Amino acid sequence: MFASERKQGRVIALISDFGLADPYVGQMKGVLTRLASSCQVVDICHEVESFNIAQAAFFLAASAPYFPGDAVFLSVVDPGVGTDRRIVALTRDRQVFLAPDNGLLGLLLEREQGFRAFDMTRARHARTEVSDTFHGRDVFAPLAAWLAMGGNPAELGTEIPTDSLVRPDWIRPNIGPGFAHARILHVDRFGNCVLNIPPGPLDHVRNLLFETSETVDLRQVRTYGELRPGDPGLLAGSQGFLELSVNLRSAAKRFGLRSGDAITFVWEQQ
Amino acid sequence: MFASERKQGRVIALISDFGLADPYVGQMKGVLTRLASSCQVVDICHEVESFNIAQAAFFLAASAPYFPGDAVFLSVVDPGVGTDRRIVALTRDRQVFLAPDNGLLGLLLEREQGFRAFDMTRARHARTEVSDTFHGRDVFAPLAAWLAMGGNPAELGTEIPTDSLVRPDWIRPNIGPGFAHARILHVDRFGNCVLNIPPGPLDHVRNLLFETSETVDLRQVRTYGELRPGDPGLLAGSQGFLELSVNLRSAAKRFGLRSGDAITFVWEQQ
Amino acid sequence: MFASERKQGRVIALISDFGLADPYVGQMKGVLTRLASSCQVVDICHEVESFNIAQAAFFLAASAPYFPGDAVFLSVVDPGVGTDRRIVALTRDRQVFLAPDNGLLGLLLEREQGFRAFDMTRARHARTEVSDTFHGRDVFAPLAAWLAMGGNPAELGTEIPTDSLVRPDWIRPNIGPGFAHARILHVDRFGNCVLNIPPGPLDHVRNLLFETSETVDLRQVRTYGELRPGDPGLLAGSQGFLELSVNLRSAAKRFGLRSGDAITFVWEQQ
Repeated sequence: MFASERKQGRVIALISDFGLADPYVGQMKGVLTRLASSCQVVDICHEVESFNIAQAAFFLAASAPYFPGDAVFLSVVDPGVGTDRRIVALTRDRQVFLAPDNGLLGLLLEREQGFRAFDMTRARHARTEVSDTFHGRDVFAPLAAWLAMGGNPAELGTEIPTDSLVRPDWIRPNIGPGFAHARILHVDRFGNCVLNIPPGPLDHVRNLLFETSETVDLRQVRTYGELRPGDPGLLAGSQGFLELSVNLRSAAKRFGLRSGDAITFVWEQQ
Repeated sequence: MFASERKQGRVIALISDFGLADPYVGQMKGVLTRLASSCQVVDICHEVESFNIAQAAFFLAASAPYFPGDAVFLSVVDPGVGTDRRIVALTRDRQVFLAPDNGLLGLLLEREQGFRAFDMTRARHARTEVSDTFHGRDVFAPLAAWLAMGGNPAELGTEIPTDSLVRPDWIRPNIGPGFAHARILHVDRFGNCVLNIPPGPLDHVRNLLFETSETVDLRQVRTYGELRPGDPGLLAGSQGFLELSVNLRSAAKRFGLRSGDAITFVWEQQ
Repeated sequence: MFASERKQGRVIALISDFGLADPYVGQMKGVLTRLASSCQVVDICHEVESFNIAQAAFFLAASAPYFPGDAVFLSVVDPGVGTDRRIVALTRDRQVFLAPDNGLLGLLLEREQGFRAFDMTRARHARTEVSDTFHGRDVFAPLAAWLAMGGNPAELGTEIPTDSLVRPDWIRPNIGPGFAHARILHVDRFGNCVLNIPPGPLDHVRNLLFETSETVDLRQVRTYGELRPGDPGLLAGSQGFLELSVNLRSAAKRFGLRSGDAITFVWEQQ
């Protein structure tokens, strides 16, 4: 189906904290359709909380596997706009990930292998007129369009070691004997709390407790249906991370949790 | 213009209750663009209230006539995900409607003729990895992509009688001598209350009363402009159903009504 | 790259006050994809406040320069639907701007040269069935599709002088010796207040004061970073208009301002 894929050009997938009530996302799309007219622009999410890098990193890591093998991902949550933070392009097979180097690529790097990284910061000088406040439109979008049209990151950028990229502490939980310190990456519309814990390390833990104002006994389950209505549990969910959930209710409301909160689980070791 | 239509591939139109603040819609679009790269994905609405099947059924029935004659509609409001509810594909001429068999297709079936129905539930086994909680991405999207690429529903599914599909009682009003028991399918952003009453049956009714905490005299009008500001009326609207409206105000606020509410109209018979 | 541009057809960019919780935008897109299947529909914004023409005019004027040179812009904020307000198409080079003649095109006309205007009101009779309340879907979308497919406005419409178009007083500030009466066109998600003042006329003003319940000393700066956290300033921003901003805070909340508010700046003349 190569001919069919080429007909539409590559997909450019977008993540930002710009929201949909301003013209900012529209202007980025204007630039993308102007410079990469044969490409297809697809929104992943623009309702990332302002400057919540961890949430954007989760959206990106959880979504990338479902997109075409040659998709270009443009992620702009950029509290450092106007400072000297780097702009980086990661490549993995034929997928490309463009973002500010502020941790947004951290979960992706933590979970997958085989990346190459390129410092594209210099490439911002490609356009003559660049606003100081809106690099999403004036720097990132032209670069993403250029990459989507087949541009080779090595041509405008410099290859750098992937371990030089910013990796915040929330990209993985701190798991020790009998405890796991985790972080809530995202609370979804149903109140499920997505944790920075991949499936696996807690699989064989029994009698898991979640310590909050009260001490809560948690069951690890495979589906919401295994929990009685109102009962809390930990399950693998659909996003590739463990989720703290309450069947038919909001876990976030039940425990007063928000995106970004730290959370500790404990258990007795066998 | 056949050549022109083929160039873009078919339109895949989406309805869901996933909202736009989670990565769920984006991941469905990732799958669609990966498997049906030449198709064009168009959002009808993702802000359906959680599990409000009637609202989604209204969005679908009201919107389908405006889409291309070969569009594929993917509607996912699916409280029964993980249970044994069926997945069905309706076809009518060259349009295809894919949804869980939970009533979501009910208004469409009530209003139009010439459908064929196919049970596609078995087709969920087509993918190897299917999450228990997100069939929108893992089951419905691959099927919709396959249908949009020209897949014949009879190939993966089994034809079933259309009258075997779930048809909830809200697909039509209960109209008797001097009364109509109706239901509010949707409250729009202007506060207009869309009813499950098609234009027609109440056309010749005079002195229509709407019984709520007070008794309200309703005029049947053709445009909002025929009502004095603040006056309530019943009009055919643009969506193919009668709407309870208040000129320049919110009818929902004025009468304390919400989507899903039952509502009764009465009149003296001639 | 002409061949590449043609492959996708032209971009149709949308602005409306329909929101995303109703099926209205989806139905407009249905019509557009049905009648202009090779075109690419791009959202600028659908969260314009109901009937806020100035806000839509700002979104349009600020976004148009970033779109392809042959884009068609469809803007529908239309409190006069059903009255005899005109429908107009502006052209400038190969860009086309379709809108009701209610001031929505005013900022565009104020800021750029070289437009031609066409009265397209008669063209509404092209479709047989037109609802009285939803011209966005039934009149504007078919016209936009026709224009995007290469239709010449002069064929269905009549050329009219551009200075016959409605130009509300908010398209420009009233600047006199020592004062500027301005208007807030838009408050963005960060609380920045976009003014109807282009960069330029106030550039050389020193000791600018903003008179509200208190008298506020304003610095004119190039970036937010030049302001101390919590300090207010006036800067050119990324949208082509001056913005009243407070570093790291919401200027709208700080001063109790909303879209549409009048605002006065004063200074001592040299």
